[in-house]
Amino acid sequence: MSERLVVIGGDAGGMSAASQARRRRGPDELEIVAFERGHFTSYSACGIPYWVGGIVDGPDHLVARDPATFRDQFAIDVRLRHEVVAIDLDRREVVARALDEGGREVRHGFDQLVYAAGALPLTPDWPGVDAAGVFGVQTLDDGAAVRRWLDGEVKPRRAVVVGGGYIGVEMAEALVRRGLAVTLVERDAQPMSTVDPDMGSLVRSAMEGMGIEVRTGEQVLGMEYADGRVSTVVTDRGELPADIVVLGLGVRPNARLAADAGIPTGTTGGVVTDLMMRAGDGVWAVGDCVETVHLLTGKPVHIPLGTHANKQGRVAGINIGGGYATFPGVIGTAVTKVCDLEVARTGLRERDAATAGFAFVTARIESTNRAGYFPGTKPMTIKLIAERGTGRLLGAQIIGRSEAAKRIDALAVALWNGMTVEEMTQLDLGYAPPYAPVWDPILVAARKAVEAL
Amino acid sequence: MSERLVVIGGDAGGMSAASQARRRRGPDELEIVAFERGHFTSYSACGIPYWVGGIVDGPDHLVARDPATFRDQFAIDVRLRHEVVAIDLDRREVVARALDEGGREVRHGFDQLVYAAGALPLTPDWPGVDAAGVFGVQTLDDGAAVRRWLDGEVKPRRAVVVGGGYIGVEMAEALVRRGLAVTLVERDAQPMSTVDPDMGSLVRSAMEGMGIEVRTGEQVLGMEYADGRVSTVVTDRGELPADIVVLGLGVRPNARLAADAGIPTGTTGGVVTDLMMRAGDGVWAVGDCVETVHLLTGKPVHIPLGTHANKQGRVAGINIGGGYATFPGVIGTAVTKVCDLEVARTGLRERDAATAGFAFVTARIESTNRAGYFPGTKPMTIKLIAERGTGRLLGAQIIGRSEAAKRIDALAVALWNGMTVEEMTQLDLGYAPPYAPVWDPILVAARKAVEAL
Repeated sequence: MSERLVVIGGDAGGMSAASQARRRRGPDELEIVAFERGHFTSYSACGIPYWVGGIVDGPDHLVARDPATFRDQFAIDVRLRHEVVAIDLDRREVVARALDEGGREVRHGFDQLVYAAGALPLTPDWPGVDAAGVFGVQTLDDGAAVRRWLDGEVKPRRAVVVGGGYIGVEMAEALVRRGLAVTLVERDAQPMSTVDPDMGSLVRSAMEGMGIEVRTGEQVLGMEYADGRVSTVVTDRGELPADIVVLGLGVRPNARLAADAGIPTGTTGGVVTDLMMRAGDGVWAVGDCVETVHLLTGKPVHIPLGTHANKQGRVAGINIGGGYATFPGVIGTAVTKVCDLEVARTGLRERDAATAGFAFVTARIESTNRAGYFPGTKPMTIKLIAERGTGRLLGAQIIGRSEAAKRIDALAVALWNGMTVEEMTQLDLGYAPPYAPVWDPILVAARKAVEAL
Repeated sequence: MSERLVVIGGDAGGMSAASQARRRRGPDELEIVAFERGHFTSYSACGIPYWVGGIVDGPDHLVARDPATFRDQFAIDVRLRHEVVAIDLDRREVVARALDEGGREVRHGFDQLVYAAGALPLTPDWPGVDAAGVFGVQTLDDGAAVRRWLDGEVKPRRAVVVGGGYIGVEMAEALVRRGLAVTLVERDAQPMSTVDPDMGSLVRSAMEGMGIEVRTGEQVLGMEYADGRVSTVVTDRGELPADIVVLGLGVRPNARLAADAGIPTGTTGGVVTDLMMRAGDGVWAVGDCVETVHLLTGKPVHIPLGTHANKQGRVAGINIGGGYATFPGVIGTAVTKVCDLEVARTGLRERDAATAGFAFVTARIESTNRAGYFPGTKPMTIKLIAERGTGRLLGAQIIGRSEAAKRIDALAVALWNGMTVEEMTQLDLGYAPPYAPVWDPILVAARKAVEAL
């Protein structure tokens, strides 16, 4: 008799696990059923702001593999609009509700379970936060709802984005592209707090240059609404009229169902797994619902990113399929586009390094993406954080306007390998006038960090 | 009494050494005189094809620092058009000829000597190779000569480029941009033999797409000339009419002067140095005239690149200045632009790996520079070479059309650190739709290499 694999959550993590398991074990050996609450499988949540902004088509273009593909090519039975409401580990079954069938209860037994329920947007307990026109942007269904609102009869002209993280700044830009007057409200001193404030100030300038009003150090208190829809965002400094409000306040692991079933969760709220992404006997957990370890601090972190979800899903799937793979943890690499800026980071920010107990120096340099005399040369700022004493690289941040973001990868690999900034000055990096100055900005930054030590 | 530092060669390596020495020891402590045979100091030789092609201005734009800057800001006495013709290590003096003063002899004593005489183009002993209209492209003076010929009364219409390495392909493209009909003749099976032939065939297609006639497996026998200038390139397969011929056959270390003075040279013909770039007692050598070590094979190599010259010069200068720095060797990273292709490599090609005695597997994948649904997405090919057994990365090659070349840096850092392709599948690289698919091409390639193992 074949084993039964049930997957909870049909996005990147869950479906990577399912596909990988299938590659190693055919339908005769392993039956795979995936339950997905929404309308879509395996989509790029990161693409939503670009869809809203009209830069890419959607929603189908954002879907890597649809249920028909999973069924026909992978023999994976995806049940859309099925919300799993309970996991019974003793009986080895899940209980789901068929949302489009009046909530009809479906029970399904499993031998192996992949828990990949994703994350939920943080929604503070503000008055009016449930008004029509207030959106989180986490799922493709959320993106569709924002687009319907923008295209609907309200004809929104004024947008307020609350929160200046990735989603906030990307959505602010998207809404400007759609012709709205956009205000971004951020509690911290600078938007883009995923980088240090000195780097974030560069992001702020770029956003303001695009016509976005950036209000920092300002706290949202609630929303007012009229005719059943949002009309105003109330802050500790005044009132901001709004026809649409986007919340970009971060997310939390969607781990309740797992916790209710007795699957351990950690200090971040995410499901705890071992290196093989195992959360229990025959239970696996992957993606935005799990916590992982930061390889520099050794502490658990919750970093919801599609790239981790895919890797974790692949690891779980290989292990379910009888192979062996591990996900050792993360170092906090991330890149994003903010207006005409490319923003990238890896490792620890100054505040993270201090919290972790590192003594460190910083070095910031201005360079360019190409040889100074080459057409299209644009400025680039690189900041390095290195441990005092050892000189080990602890963090790096890049802001530039062209061919900047992915330069973080070389720094991420250096950091991953525990390189010192001294050794980094010796690195053999690519040089040609269209692609780099003869001293690559990374080498210049490493030299400056050595001096700072 | 102050020490006297003499530098032979006023380009990247020599002048980096001089500048670094000056940063640590003021004019009262160290007198610095540099002799340069040509008309320019510290220029970007890599920029010459772009100057010839009209993409960048020149020659002054290609000069990082001119003699007046060295004199005024660094108290370095640069003597242009002075060719050093002998080094006397016993008397601690160099003998130079002032080329613009009838070859007047100049003698100058030194306590420390930096030998940075660069490289010389390989010029086979072909009949007619000295005819007017036949050029090597090594120095800025060479570039100026090519430009004068192109702008002169000959009005060249047909160009033959001999040799399909970096300089050859870059010059072929430059000459096409100038409106010439260009034929490239290469002895090997594919142009761009700095990458494996399967990758080189992609380069060939791009060149042909730009209208360049690429003739491979063809051997040049000599030149014919008429009216004192080149008229025809004769090969083993026929005759190619030519109004201008550019030789891109590679270079050799310009080490004769050093060798004559008893400074050791190695199997590559380059000056031998230690890790501090010391070639003898108070004698240092840097740049295109030295050999260095390939960190994967442990063998001496001659890799003339501005990025190495600058690093080596800096290292020598720090050591002359009383500090401590080393240049440990290279791993063969290089990038170039060929028509609309970005071509990059690091580590060993298949043939290098075989020669060095490695058993290896290869993996080649097709991916894209951005998320597939994002505008401006372009194809990218990555090839990895990994050691059998250990799985250690031995080499990587990338060909793409946008945001491809500098991705080699992440692979170069991985290779530098001895990473296995298995561990590389776990790397935390940057992901955002404008900059990468959710599985970065590097990760896809690493996965494929793991499978190949």
